Amino acid sequence: MGRVTFDISMSLDGFVAGPSASHEEPLGVGGLQLHEWAFAAARWREAHGESGGEAGADDDVIAEAVAASGVTIMGRHMFSGEGGPWGEDPFMGWWGEDPPFHHPVFVLTHHARETLELGDTSFTFVTDGIESALEQAQAAAGERDVAVAGGANVIQQYLRAGLVDGFQVHIAPVLLGGGVPLFDALGTTLPTLEVERVVAGERATHIRYRCV
Amino acid sequence: MGRVTFDISMSLDGFVAGPSASHEEPLGVGGLQLHEWAFAAARWREAHGESGGEAGADDDVIAEAVAASGVTIMGRHMFSGEGGPWGEDPFMGWWGEDPPFHHPVFVLTHHARETLELGDTSFTFVTDGIESALEQAQAAAGERDVAVAGGANVIQQYLRAGLVDGFQVHIAPVLLGGGVPLFDALGTTLPTLEVERVVAGERATHIRYRCV
Repeated sequence: MGRVTFDISMSLDGFVAGPSASHEEPLGVGGLQLHEWAFAAARWREAHGESGGEAGADDDVIAEAVAASGVTIMGRHMFSGEGGPWGEDPFMGWWGEDPPFHHPVFVLTHHARETLELGDTSFTFVTDGIESALEQAQAAAGERDVAVAGGANVIQQYLRAGLVDGFQVHIAPVLLGGGVPLFDALGTTLPTLEVERVVAGERATHIRYRCV
Repeated sequence: MGRVTFDISMSLDGFVAGPSASHEEPLGVGGLQLHEWAFAAARWREAHGESGGEAGADDDVIAEAVAASGVTIMGRHMFSGEGGPWGEDPFMGWWGEDPPFHHPVFVLTHHARETLELGDTSFTFVTDGIESALEQAQAAAGERDVAVAGGANVIQQYLRAGLVDGFQVHIAPVLLGGGVPLFDALGTTLPTLEVERVVAGERATHIRYRCV
């Protein structure tokens, strides 16, 4: 069975989105800076239907993450913008007609509905909790990894439940001064970490940890 | 003139001390884990009058930091324990008879007093603010760096004032879940950062940033 992981960009002060998220700045003030390393990478651009971009260590990290993950789990806000500031269609999601996943996605929600197929990505809606979503995701993933995409609160739920095998944080060289913290509300049983690998990228520092 | 820097160990969730600091655990619950990488390093042990320890990348980072800094600035709590949980002598400080600095230290305080000489470390008490302390420190340092040792609130004061040229964070592979955040209360004018260097140590990841 593959590992349960997450991959997320974080500011040096620990935020995955800046303060004061709004329709104009859905990632909060300064939040886009967290992802500049990815936006500049050729294979991120390719996965999102854009051309150009750079090769290098940051780009290799993108390629590796794309290759490793066979299935994605996400929260309903990340799927739809429902309740979020960007106000996209809560039914079709905000990922467009050809979402960048190209594999099964399981969406944690309270509202049962049929699986939605968009391009070669399927969104399956799971109403009976994070363990059930993980079981379904692992069955679909086979030997590949299950990636918990977010948001931060979904990642925190899986960390609190002790279900995460490891993760990679992409530390952007930016201070946001506030926003959505990644490692928040983890309860009292914190995972014990070991560094698995460090990559000094051109625009971010990528550290992969094992939860032991 | 040398650079103004700081070197500090931080948890992956951004804390420089854990929650619930007490006399038994002055660095808070789990806080000692932040410094395990240093405690294990031969040259940290040597600088603190102990034998043994390991060579390697972590140890090289210690040696480099010791060599670079010519003068240290610290807050009065860091000097004395005054107001802190460890309850050491507020007059002599809690650094013992041979403090590990071996160079001039400037202590920010509201209480004027004579310079204190302990071993080959001098503690000069500055009552007229962080800029004055920095001027005196730079005069004493010559071409060497001025290291702002802490606590976190002193580092934050220098960051807010735009007086820091760069810094190194030693990211320990640990989540503390609470405690004393390093990058807090920085105001609205946040420094712009560039990664200067990444060292993947045996027990911590060392990232040096420039403030540009």
